Amino acid sequence: MSIDRASLIPVLKNVATQLRIDSIRSTSEAGSGHPTSCCSAAEIMAALFFAEMRFDPKNPRNPDADRFVLSKGHAAPVLYAAWAEAGAFDRSELLKLRRIDSDLEGHPTPRLPFVDVATGSLGQGICAGIGIALNARRIASDYRTYVLLGDGESAEGSVWEAGNVGAADKLDNLCGITDVNGLGQSRATMWNHDMDQFARRWRAFGWHAIVIDGHDLGAILDALDEARRTKGQPTMILARTIKGKGISFAEGKEGWHGKALNKAELDRAIAELEKQFVPVPPDVEKLAKNPASLIPKPASTSRPPVAPKSPAPPSYKIGDQVATREAYGDAIAKLGEVDPRIVALDADVKNSTFSEKFEKKFPDRFYQNFIAEQVMVGAAMGLAARGAIPFPSTFACFFSRAADFIRMAAISNVGVKLVGSHAGVSIGEDGPSQMALEDLAMCTAQPNFAVLYPCDGVSTERLVALMASHAGPAYMRTSRPKTPVIYSADETFSIGGLKVLRESGGDVATVIGAGVTVFEALKAHDELKTAGMPIRVIDLYSVSPIDRDGLVAAARATGGHLITVEDHYPAGGIGDAVAAAVADAGFTVHRLAVREIPRSGKAEELLDRFGISARHIVSAVRALAGKTVGAR
Amino acid sequence: MSIDRASLIPVLKNVATQLRIDSIRSTSEAGSGHPTSCCSAAEIMAALFFAEMRFDPKNPRNPDADRFVLSKGHAAPVLYAAWAEAGAFDRSELLKLRRIDSDLEGHPTPRLPFVDVATGSLGQGICAGIGIALNARRIASDYRTYVLLGDGESAEGSVWEAGNVGAADKLDNLCGITDVNGLGQSRATMWNHDMDQFARRWRAFGWHAIVIDGHDLGAILDALDEARRTKGQPTMILARTIKGKGISFAEGKEGWHGKALNKAELDRAIAELEKQFVPVPPDVEKLAKNPASLIPKPASTSRPPVAPKSPAPPSYKIGDQVATREAYGDAIAKLGEVDPRIVALDADVKNSTFSEKFEKKFPDRFYQNFIAEQVMVGAAMGLAARGAIPFPSTFACFFSRAADFIRMAAISNVGVKLVGSHAGVSIGEDGPSQMALEDLAMCTAQPNFAVLYPCDGVSTERLVALMASHAGPAYMRTSRPKTPVIYSADETFSIGGLKVLRESGGDVATVIGAGVTVFEALKAHDELKTAGMPIRVIDLYSVSPIDRDGLVAAARATGGHLITVEDHYPAGGIGDAVAAAVADAGFTVHRLAVREIPRSGKAEELLDRFGISARHIVSAVRALAGKTVGAR
Repeated sequence: MSIDRASLIPVLKNVATQLRIDSIRSTSEAGSGHPTSCCSAAEIMAALFFAEMRFDPKNPRNPDADRFVLSKGHAAPVLYAAWAEAGAFDRSELLKLRRIDSDLEGHPTPRLPFVDVATGSLGQGICAGIGIALNARRIASDYRTYVLLGDGESAEGSVWEAGNVGAADKLDNLCGITDVNGLGQSRATMWNHDMDQFARRWRAFGWHAIVIDGHDLGAILDALDEARRTKGQPTMILARTIKGKGISFAEGKEGWHGKALNKAELDRAIAELEKQFVPVPPDVEKLAKNPASLIPKPASTSRPPVAPKSPAPPSYKIGDQVATREAYGDAIAKLGEVDPRIVALDADVKNSTFSEKFEKKFPDRFYQNFIAEQVMVGAAMGLAARGAIPFPSTFACFFSRAADFIRMAAISNVGVKLVGSHAGVSIGEDGPSQMALEDLAMCTAQPNFAVLYPCDGVSTERLVALMASHAGPAYMRTSRPKTPVIYSADETFSIGGLKVLRESGGDVATVIGAGVTVFEALKAHDELKTAGMPIRVIDLYSVSPIDRDGLVAAARATGGHLITVEDHYPAGGIGDAVAAAVADAGFTVHRLAVREIPRSGKAEELLDRFGISARHIVSAVRALAGKTVGAR
Repeated sequence: MSIDRASLIPVLKNVATQLRIDSIRSTSEAGSGHPTSCCSAAEIMAALFFAEMRFDPKNPRNPDADRFVLSKGHAAPVLYAAWAEAGAFDRSELLKLRRIDSDLEGHPTPRLPFVDVATGSLGQGICAGIGIALNARRIASDYRTYVLLGDGESAEGSVWEAGNVGAADKLDNLCGITDVNGLGQSRATMWNHDMDQFARRWRAFGWHAIVIDGHDLGAILDALDEARRTKGQPTMILARTIKGKGISFAEGKEGWHGKALNKAELDRAIAELEKQFVPVPPDVEKLAKNPASLIPKPASTSRPPVAPKSPAPPSYKIGDQVATREAYGDAIAKLGEVDPRIVALDADVKNSTFSEKFEKKFPDRFYQNFIAEQVMVGAAMGLAARGAIPFPSTFACFFSRAADFIRMAAISNVGVKLVGSHAGVSIGEDGPSQMALEDLAMCTAQPNFAVLYPCDGVSTERLVALMASHAGPAYMRTSRPKTPVIYSADETFSIGGLKVLRESGGDVATVIGAGVTVFEALKAHDELKTAGMPIRVIDLYSVSPIDRDGLVAAARATGGHLITVEDHYPAGGIGDAVAAAVADAGFTVHRLAVREIPRSGKAEELLDRFGISARHIVSAVRALAGKTVGAR
C-alpha cells in the first residue's frame, strides 16, 4: 500500500506510541522486563515494520521475506508489540509476557515463528545477521536483513568480528541499526551519546554509517532508503535515542534499566503516552487504524523443494591410514555434491581441518571468517535458521571461543554442525593451547546437541552425512593423527549408536574408547588376550545421545567392569557420559583421562604420560578384573 | 649501557639475524613449529629486547621490569631465542624446543619464568596486556607493557574489546606492536599489507597508531620512542613485515605457515642468513658480542610484602534473607579492606552481581570493561600474573563468552577468581538466554579450577575469602533469589569440603544439593521425615575439589542411595562430579537436573517444571529407597 511521506509519518508516529504503550503495559503486567529499552527503539521499530520491511505477518517463515533480528534481545516486548500490531497474533497475548504458559519469553526464542535465532546474549544478533544475509545470496533471494543492536552491546568483540566479515563479504543486503540510548545496565555506556565514536568505528570497519536522530521518523525512513541504495558494503544506521523516550520521569535517567513500572507509574506513563497520539490526515484515517495494511509483501518466489540424494559410500579400504579430520574434508565435499544446502565456514584453518576440500569444489558455499570463531558460529546459526546446513569448523579448542554462541545455538535449536579438529594431547608438539580437552564437556552439556567422535575414515564420512540430516545442532570431534580405517565401507552407523569391536564369551572387562583411544584399547586387547584376559572393546562414536542399552549389556557380560579411556579431561567427557548412562543399572565406571594440564611432546609420549595409552588400559584392566580371573 | 643510534642499529641487525637462525634451527630440530612467523618479527624482537625494554634477564619476575607478551604465541621460538640471547639460559637449550623434557613448549606457558600468561589462542595476549598495564597503575610502578600481535589475530573480537578498554582507561603504559606479515595460516589475511586497514581501525578505537616498516630498525626504535612519549592513550605500532624474511625461498610465500625447514632447506637458509650479518663499528665490537649488556635495567623499587589481615566474620544472622550474589558483593568489599591486592572487574552488570559494593569503596581497584567479557577475563589473567587477586564477575552464563580465556587461564595456572551470578532456572522470567546451566561443566572441566557454589550468605562470604587466598584459578557460582542464612557466622568451610545439614541413624538416602537446591532438599527432608523416611542432606558447596570421603561415608550410611539435585544441565554438573568421586567405592548416583532447554516463568514454577523441586526429590527418594523401608 503506497502512501505519501507526509501522511505516513503521523501514522508511524502513532504506531510508535502504541508500541511504547504495549511495551510498558506488558512489562508491568509481568512485573519485570525492560520497558525503557523498548521506548528508545519505538520509532525505529515502527518504521522498519510498517514502512520498510517486506513480509507477511501471517507467514513469517516466507523464505523471501525480509528478516529482522533483535540483537538487543531484552527489548523483546517491543518486538512482540510490533508483531501484534502487524497482525501476527492478538494484542491481548502481550499481557502474558514472561509467563510459563506463553511463548512471549523474557528474551526472544525461535519458539516464536517470527524469531530466527534466540537473542539476549548481547553481540550475537549481528553475527546471525551475517549468516542470514549470506543465505539470501545462497538462495538468490533479494530479501534484506535488518538487525537492531543496542549501544551497550557494541562493546562485545563479536560485533566487530561481524563488522569485519560483513564488509569483507560486501553484504549490502544487511542493514544494522544501533539504538544509541546512551545508558547501559549499570551506568552510562562507554561512549554515551558521542555518535562519532560509533560512526568512526563502523566506517573504519568498512561499513556505510549514517548518523540520525532515532526518534525522527523522516530521518529513519531516509536512512533506511539510503541503506537500500548503498551497494558493495553493509550499512549501519546509528540512531541517537533517549532511553525511556515518551515517559517524562524515566527519559534519559539512570536507574530505570530492566525495571517494570509499578501501577502508579504505569498509569501516569500511559496517560502521558496517550497524549502523544497525533492527528492523521483525513485521507489516511482508515489506514491508520490498520497499519498492518501498510506492510509491503515479499515477492513470492516458487522454490522447488530440495531433494538431496545419498552420497556415494566411502571409498576407503580397511587398513588405509587417514586422519579423521581429513576424512571430514572428503565427507563434506562429497555431501556438497548431493545437497545444495550444505555450506562450510572457516576461521583460517581450512588446511588443518581440511574444509578446504569443500572450498575447492564449492567456493560460493564456503564462507571465510578469518580468525574469528564467534562470527563463524553466529553466521552458521543464521544460515541454519534460514534453511542451510552449515558446517563451521576449526580446531576443537577454539570452538570454546564461541561457547556462548554454542549455548545460544542450543537455545535456538538451530541445526549448526560444528566440526572441531586437533582434539586432545594426541596433537603432540604444539602444546596445551592447541589441545581441546574440554570440548566434549562444552557440547554434551547442551541437552539437544548430538556429539559424535569417530575414530576412522569410514565412520567419519558416515557420521558427517548423519549429522547433516539430523534436525538439531551437532558437534563432531576429529583428530590430528592418521589412524587406520577399521570399518568396511558398507558399515552402518547411527546417532546414538556404538560399535563392539572385540568380544568373546570370556571378556573380563569392557574398555570404551573413542577417536584415538580406540586404537589404544585395541592394542591393550591384543596384549591382554595373549595374557588370557580378553576384553570387550567398544567404539563410542556417539557420545550424546549414548547407547545406554548397549553399554549396560556390555557391563553385564563383562563382570560389571567398565573402563573408559579418553583424550579429554575427566569432567564432562566420555567417562561421565557412560557413567550417567549406566548408573540406573547399578554400574560404575573406571575412568582413564587426562588429569592435569598437559605439555608439548610427541603424541605417543603424551598419551602415555597422561595416562591414556594401551599400557595404562592394561594396568587398569588388571587392577579391576585381575582378581576375578586370578591372573595376578 | 648507552650507545649511539648509528652504532646500535648494526648491532641490533645482527641480533635479528641471530634470532632468525635460532628460530629456524630450533624448529627444524623439533620437526615442527612456525619459523616464518618468527622471521617476520626478528627486528621487532631485537629492538624490544636489546634497546627498549628495561628488565633483568636473570630475574624476569622483577615487579618493576617492563613486560612482554607474545600474543602471537606460535612465534614462541623467537621469544625463546631472545631470552637466550639476553642470557636467561644457554642457547643450546633452544634445540630442545617442543620436547617433553623441555619447558620450551610449542607455545609459551608460565612454566617459563619470563612468561606471564600462556598464549597460542590468538587475540588473548593483548587482553592480558590490559591487565598487566592496569597492574602497573595499581602498584604505582612505571613499568611498561609491550604486546606483539599477529595481523591474522586482529580478526578476533577480543582484540577490539581490548582496543576499547585500553583507550577508555587511557593506558599510555601499554604499547602493542602488530606484525603485519600479510599471511595467515591458510591464505592471505583479511587485509594483507593494506596498512591503512589497521591504522584506521586502531585510530577509530582511540589508540595512537604508527605505521612503519617492521624490518627498519631505525623506524622501530623511533616508533617505540614515540609510543613512550605518547600520553593519555595506548599506542599500536603497525609494522609492515615479510613472513619468512631473510630466507629467500620462503619470503612472503604462502604454504610456509607452521612448517619447519627440512635439512636441505635449513642448510640453505642458514647460509643465506649468515651472509646477512653486517660489520659493526670498531668501538662497539665488544658490545656486539654481548648484546645482553645493552639491556637497560629496571628501577629497583623496594616493595614491602603484603601482609593481609583476616576480614571480620560475617555479620549475617541465621534466618536472614540474602541472595548469595549480594553476599558476594559484601564479601569482596570487606576483603578489599584487608588486602590491597584484591581488585574487581565488571562487564556492566555491577548492580546485578553486586560488585558495585566493591566499586563504591575502592573505585581505583575497580575496572569497568563494559559489555566485553573476554577482555574482562583476559585482563584479570594479566592482573593475576602480576600479583593482584582479581575478581571478575558477570552473569554466570556470560562467562561462557570467555570460555577460551578460562581455558587459557587454566593452562596459565593464574589466580583469577571468577564469580558468576544468576545461575540456573531459578532466575525465572528472564528466560534461558540469561540462565547459566553449563557453567559448572565449563569450570569443572579444567583440572586446576576450584569450583564453589554456596547456598547462603555466610558460606558465600567465607568461600570468597578462601578463594582469594587459594593459589590457583577459581570459580564461584552465585544465585539470584534471596535464600535464608543457615550457617552461623563462625562456621568454618574449606575448599574441598561439604556440610551435612541433616542426618539421623535411619536415613534412607542422601540428597546432595548446592545453591538453591539445598533448600529444596531441606523441604523434601521435612516432608519425608514426617512420612517416616528421613534423609541425609548435604550442601556440596565445593564441587571441585570434592570431598570424596564425606560422600562415600554418607553413601555407606544411607543404603548407598545417593541423589543429586542441581539447577544445571546433567552433563558436567554436580551429579557427574559426585558420581566420579564415589565410583571407586562402587556407588552410583541418581541425578535430578534440568534436562531440556528451559523457558521463562516464575522461579518456583521452573524449579518444579524442570524436575529439581522438593516434590521431585521426594519422588526420587521414594522410588529409590521406598522399597527398602516398605513405605510405599
